[in-house]
Amino acid sequence: MTLPSKMRALIQLHDGYAGTQTGPDIDDIAPFVALRDVYVPTPGKGEALIKVHLAAVNPSDIHFIKGEYGQPRRKGIPAGFEAVGQVVGGDTPLIGQRVSFFATASGTWAEYALTDASRLVPCRADLAEPDAAGLLVNPLTAIALFDVVRDSGADSFVLNAAGSQLGKLLIALGRDHGIKPIAVVRRAAQAAALRDLGAAEVIVTGDADPLDQARNIFKTLSPRVLLDAVGDQFTADLFFAMPAQARWINYGKLATEAPVLTQLGQLIFQGKEIAGFWLTRWLQQTDPARIAEAFSDIQKRFVTGRWVTDVAGIVPLSDALSGLPLALVKTDGKAFIDPRQ
Amino acid sequence: MTLPSKMRALIQLHDGYAGTQTGPDIDDIAPFVALRDVYVPTPGKGEALIKVHLAAVNPSDIHFIKGEYGQPRRKGIPAGFEAVGQVVGGDTPLIGQRVSFFATASGTWAEYALTDASRLVPCRADLAEPDAAGLLVNPLTAIALFDVVRDSGADSFVLNAAGSQLGKLLIALGRDHGIKPIAVVRRAAQAAALRDLGAAEVIVTGDADPLDQARNIFKTLSPRVLLDAVGDQFTADLFFAMPAQARWINYGKLATEAPVLTQLGQLIFQGKEIAGFWLTRWLQQTDPARIAEAFSDIQKRFVTGRWVTDVAGIVPLSDALSGLPLALVKTDGKAFIDPRQ
Repeated sequence: MTLPSKMRALIQLHDGYAGTQTGPDIDDIAPFVALRDVYVPTPGKGEALIKVHLAAVNPSDIHFIKGEYGQPRRKGIPAGFEAVGQVVGGDTPLIGQRVSFFATASGTWAEYALTDASRLVPCRADLAEPDAAGLLVNPLTAIALFDVVRDSGADSFVLNAAGSQLGKLLIALGRDHGIKPIAVVRRAAQAAALRDLGAAEVIVTGDADPLDQARNIFKTLSPRVLLDAVGDQFTADLFFAMPAQARWINYGKLATEAPVLTQLGQLIFQGKEIAGFWLTRWLQQTDPARIAEAFSDIQKRFVTGRWVTDVAGIVPLSDALSGLPLALVKTDGKAFIDPRQ
Repeated sequence: MTLPSKMRALIQLHDGYAGTQTGPDIDDIAPFVALRDVYVPTPGKGEALIKVHLAAVNPSDIHFIKGEYGQPRRKGIPAGFEAVGQVVGGDTPLIGQRVSFFATASGTWAEYALTDASRLVPCRADLAEPDAAGLLVNPLTAIALFDVVRDSGADSFVLNAAGSQLGKLLIALGRDHGIKPIAVVRRAAQAAALRDLGAAEVIVTGDADPLDQARNIFKTLSPRVLLDAVGDQFTADLFFAMPAQARWINYGKLATEAPVLTQLGQLIFQGKEIAGFWLTRWLQQTDPARIAEAFSDIQKRFVTGRWVTDVAGIVPLSDALSGLPLALVKTDGKAFIDPRQ
């Protein structure tokens, strides 16, 4: 296969961190990325070059381009963490194969991306492209977080931002493993769909009495884990309303407000704990066999329909500057970038 | 030995919890306890009756009588958790022996106290009475918290309320085990004594720039554990200034303000955690052999002078209502109640 020397890409306009905490909402991506023709990156030792079929857009991508993520931006390098594509070069026996991957060296919002060859996940032929494009970040996070839920030994678990793509994956896992999901959402309109999916209870924060709803639920269910992508005061209040030994696992920050620990004594007397989850660290600390098993499970779940990718929009790369913010407004599905358009 | 039927005791005036969070300061104990003549309690199965020689007054006692501790008050029952005394009756082979103990059935601020016979800790003959009276709560907490510090593998640890009796025990443990104590105190006047005791660094919160002091220290030392008895905003700020993987272990609440988690993302990206420590839970979860080893270590440390009990005052039981608040004002030592006076 002959590769071109140049490609289109959404490159980062800034280095390092911004020092701000504005959350994952974004009206305009133009201050952070620009559509440019750049050189196709060259794979070094242990790296693979992938022709991108479809790239995912995750909240972590938005945090990242804004300079508010756990790793520094690199000016001039394409953005985008996750995608599906075909291996076209590099230090790997997988050349020619379709793979899901997480870009470490040159991002996925581009015609070609570069990553560690050890990170390539070969895709089943029957796996749909949108499922394959979002195979890693959300599904692997769901599997990892649900391991925490299972280890808790409880009859139920609490998750907020439950209408998100990740939230839906977690609800389906709870449904399939018999651990009741207690879903927290902002609007009552989201409740029915989540109950249909498998949520045992739905708490609506837009209602007048969400904490009373929670306390009522905790009279019959005893969750030990709160999976939190919001990090606002209601999350803290919910944590303090949970039974003893509850663990608040924060893995995202949709809210910009800082929560107040009004019941610090519960950490002492009720053995409650607050911790974070970062997929990057989980990947470093977890047995590769567990990760490989997870990738097999994930593909099987999508192919058999136990997990479903809700597509909010597929935006052509050439149109991303105007199209991506519009697709991101739809909060009940996932946005993608197609670099072949 | 013939026992009297009645005894003097400071009995609790309230049941259950107060629902307040006013901290351990107290100007007047009269709203909470009263000096009364009550029946000497009768030991049941598995219980021991102890003639109290000297009872400790810990912050947890004050939290408890105010109805702000992790277990409910019991109206009419003597207050006081910890003491030294002589076993005078009950279901135990230790009758006649001097023991340190934690009262579970009838409190220590009385001429006689009642507890689980399994909880008695026989004292060495060469252990001084004030050391023996405070042998459990502070020393055992220090040993248990220092286990957390040692498990962190770090070169140093941070502790606040460092001028407290427990703080001094922890500093001495750090000194003796080569893990540098970074002591946080309110007043500069406390710094020299803590450096003499073994504190490698002292941060003074009353200064204009305590957080800058901390950041400077963290350039050369890398503590992973923050032992916190205060729970205020400075504690939270200090935690967020600490290196990655830091754990904030809250075991007390000297402050009444509620800390704000301004850098929640550090839990995700830096693997930081917030948890609590409660000696009661530690005793339930810890191997009895480790606890027995700890009691042997503790007595040896006091007898050999590696730990010192600073006595703020010994208040006669008959004079406790007026004398105890005065003794508690002295923050650089421990107050005791003598029920034989």
